[in-house]
Amino acid sequence: MNIPQTSFPRVVIVGGGFAGLAVAKGLENQKLQVVLIDKHNYHTFQPLLYQVATGGLEPDSIAFPLRKRFNDVENFFFRLAEVQGIDADKNTIETSIGCLEYDKLIIATGSTTNFFGSESIKANAMEMKSVPQALNIRSLVLENFEEALLESNLEKRLALMNFVIVGGGPTGVELAGALAEMKKGILPKDYPDLDIRQMKIHLIQGSDRLLQGMSEKASKKSEDFLRELGVDIWKNLRVLNYDGTTVTTSGEEAFEAQTVIWAAGVQGDAVPGLAEESLVERANRFKVNEFSKIEGYEHVYAIGDVACMKTKGYDHGHPMMAQPAIQQGKLLAKNIIAELKGKKRKAFVYNDKGSMATIGRNKAVVDLPKWKFQGVFAWFVWMFVHLFSLIGFRNKVIVFMNWVYNYVRFDRETRLIIRPYKKKNKYSFDKEHA
Amino acid sequence: MNIPQTSFPRVVIVGGGFAGLAVAKGLENQKLQVVLIDKHNYHTFQPLLYQVATGGLEPDSIAFPLRKRFNDVENFFFRLAEVQGIDADKNTIETSIGCLEYDKLIIATGSTTNFFGSESIKANAMEMKSVPQALNIRSLVLENFEEALLESNLEKRLALMNFVIVGGGPTGVELAGALAEMKKGILPKDYPDLDIRQMKIHLIQGSDRLLQGMSEKASKKSEDFLRELGVDIWKNLRVLNYDGTTVTTSGEEAFEAQTVIWAAGVQGDAVPGLAEESLVERANRFKVNEFSKIEGYEHVYAIGDVACMKTKGYDHGHPMMAQPAIQQGKLLAKNIIAELKGKKRKAFVYNDKGSMATIGRNKAVVDLPKWKFQGVFAWFVWMFVHLFSLIGFRNKVIVFMNWVYNYVRFDRETRLIIRPYKKKNKYSFDKEHA
Repeated sequence: MNIPQTSFPRVVIVGGGFAGLAVAKGLENQKLQVVLIDKHNYHTFQPLLYQVATGGLEPDSIAFPLRKRFNDVENFFFRLAEVQGIDADKNTIETSIGCLEYDKLIIATGSTTNFFGSESIKANAMEMKSVPQALNIRSLVLENFEEALLESNLEKRLALMNFVIVGGGPTGVELAGALAEMKKGILPKDYPDLDIRQMKIHLIQGSDRLLQGMSEKASKKSEDFLRELGVDIWKNLRVLNYDGTTVTTSGEEAFEAQTVIWAAGVQGDAVPGLAEESLVERANRFKVNEFSKIEGYEHVYAIGDVACMKTKGYDHGHPMMAQPAIQQGKLLAKNIIAELKGKKRKAFVYNDKGSMATIGRNKAVVDLPKWKFQGVFAWFVWMFVHLFSLIGFRNKVIVFMNWVYNYVRFDRETRLIIRPYKKKNKYSFDKEHA
Repeated sequence: MNIPQTSFPRVVIVGGGFAGLAVAKGLENQKLQVVLIDKHNYHTFQPLLYQVATGGLEPDSIAFPLRKRFNDVENFFFRLAEVQGIDADKNTIETSIGCLEYDKLIIATGSTTNFFGSESIKANAMEMKSVPQALNIRSLVLENFEEALLESNLEKRLALMNFVIVGGGPTGVELAGALAEMKKGILPKDYPDLDIRQMKIHLIQGSDRLLQGMSEKASKKSEDFLRELGVDIWKNLRVLNYDGTTVTTSGEEAFEAQTVIWAAGVQGDAVPGLAEESLVERANRFKVNEFSKIEGYEHVYAIGDVACMKTKGYDHGHPMMAQPAIQQGKLLAKNIIAELKGKKRKAFVYNDKGSMATIGRNKAVVDLPKWKFQGVFAWFVWMFVHLFSLIGFRNKVIVFMNWVYNYVRFDRETRLIIRPYKKKNKYSFDKEHA
């Protein structure tokens, strides 16, 4: 892998998401060699992927080149590679570009979509965990409308204009809201010869409320907002199968739809090679102690979505979101430095800063620890927090300009089919290489 | 194709480039039905493709959704389709989504890369005529550096860092300059463990000067600028073959390079179906009279790159650039309206407004009819003209912000590998569907 051997201990970080980036930043300019490995050469700001999928933002605005972030950092190495396995006995990892020894290994590989074992849903539904996947959704939505224009059979046309989103968490809610706004403001203008009223957006949630991680009030209000925008909400309904044509459910309802977006669950994207006992079975997350160390291993850590750390009040680990990932990454960096200097390490305590979701123009819900609010002000808070969290000055400015433009003009202008999805799918190519 | 029959005559325009867009705009809100057909759902601002290829701009900033441009236009229809053939006897065209009758047909399909019959160069070299192709170049350049990092064999490493650009027209010159600026400002920071001095940019031109369409002074100055930036210029040298490894030439030189960008020629992208005599043989452009009517046909017109119109001083047709395309499109629209109203048509006279090319930061050459200048002021003029010509307010703002940022920070930040080129190429997929 062509990384020099030095007298400094080598910390290998796998994954440049929120967790990996936080720990890498924290370890800057220490007496350590840091190697960051990711299969993309960029960090993805996942909370805004739904805006890329619905034409509100350009992909480059929510991603940041990983090399650039560490341009001036000494003893830092980035490698574009996929990690295939860990050999903890030999302290090495196997990657697509060769083998690498580590002194400390930090797994921050995040999560993947969880299809709960359904091969059929996996093959036919869309996911939205990466930039290419978000672009695929954007292409598919627009390609469906181009096709609907030409379709004289009513049933087939309705299926093309039927969008089923499975999962009422933040991703599902935000995507449903954004699609509903496209339906309202953009599609009738772009497709004047289609009856856009025939477009349906179904949001299906297994339990009895949306945004289950948030307050009852946030759930209630987000439902109101979505209904106002014309989204059909189905609660206490589970999707059993999707064969590319029909969505079957645990209830009486079945949906004929060409597009199903699966946002119903994630699981850890664990790297193979460690003992089975180190994994939480179905969640596929590594069991770690409050110092992020994986159970049974001396020098292997896991942070972020792929880690399941049980602390007080979090019996099933912390929520798989940006905040715990960032906090775990930061603390792990501090603890590694403390160890180097012979100081005491600190145990992790999750500081829940609250959570928020946006449904549409002037419509958001915010739960802070001591204050919960909804509506226009919540929407501004949501925007401010997300702008502030984006990496890179250029990204902040470009996203801000786009948002101002979209707000003033009621528009979402980046609706180009740059990755034709339907054509490509014939080669069953994109799913693999996204 | 599901387009209503009305009492208005139907004008079908094939291609939404500069020419097609100009004629479609000119025909707005007349007693005509206008159908615009393009294989992309967006217009591409080709003069800035090289900035997408070198990480300076995001693809969505230089493209514009075609439907949006005509949102408020009556009797206008857009269809996303590929036109496969013309049957001029029946006044119909055959497309990927069915057959369509026309009263008038306007072919504005532009141009494609001309490999002068070399299958081997076509298979192995990169082109830059579309957004996906520009993104492919961006990915390949970055993927090469990631690979070079790992390559211990010096020869192979040099081949990965060797960039051969064939063709010293505006595309070749601008791309060479932009790559040279990446070499200077960005790559040494991103790849500190590579010796970036080993990177070579070769610009190969068949004739004795670059920018042959411009003044001698512009040619001379652009060569000076490129040399200053470290580009190796080869004049009077023709490329004979490229097998994916070695570029062989008409001279003694051969180049070992993993990347060859072919900007050495274009030819008309003529739609099949018309008589062979209506085409200029090797150029593949339709012979048209000064009213843009194709020789031998009553209701079929061609404008822009795909048309070869001989007027005074232009024995081989007008240059294949934006200006003639726009002017021909505008005049054709006026002439069609004049005909409708029983007024007299005007013959086309090309108004050469001049031409320009940018080589890099503060380095451009501008030839106006009465004034030729180079350097910083030329560079500002170049930027102003291109900003002004971009379609869409949002695009103008976003491109402007990016340029200010890149200028102040000496940076080009959108360097994400979103379409991994090398991986995909295995499926020989991208070349076909770009």
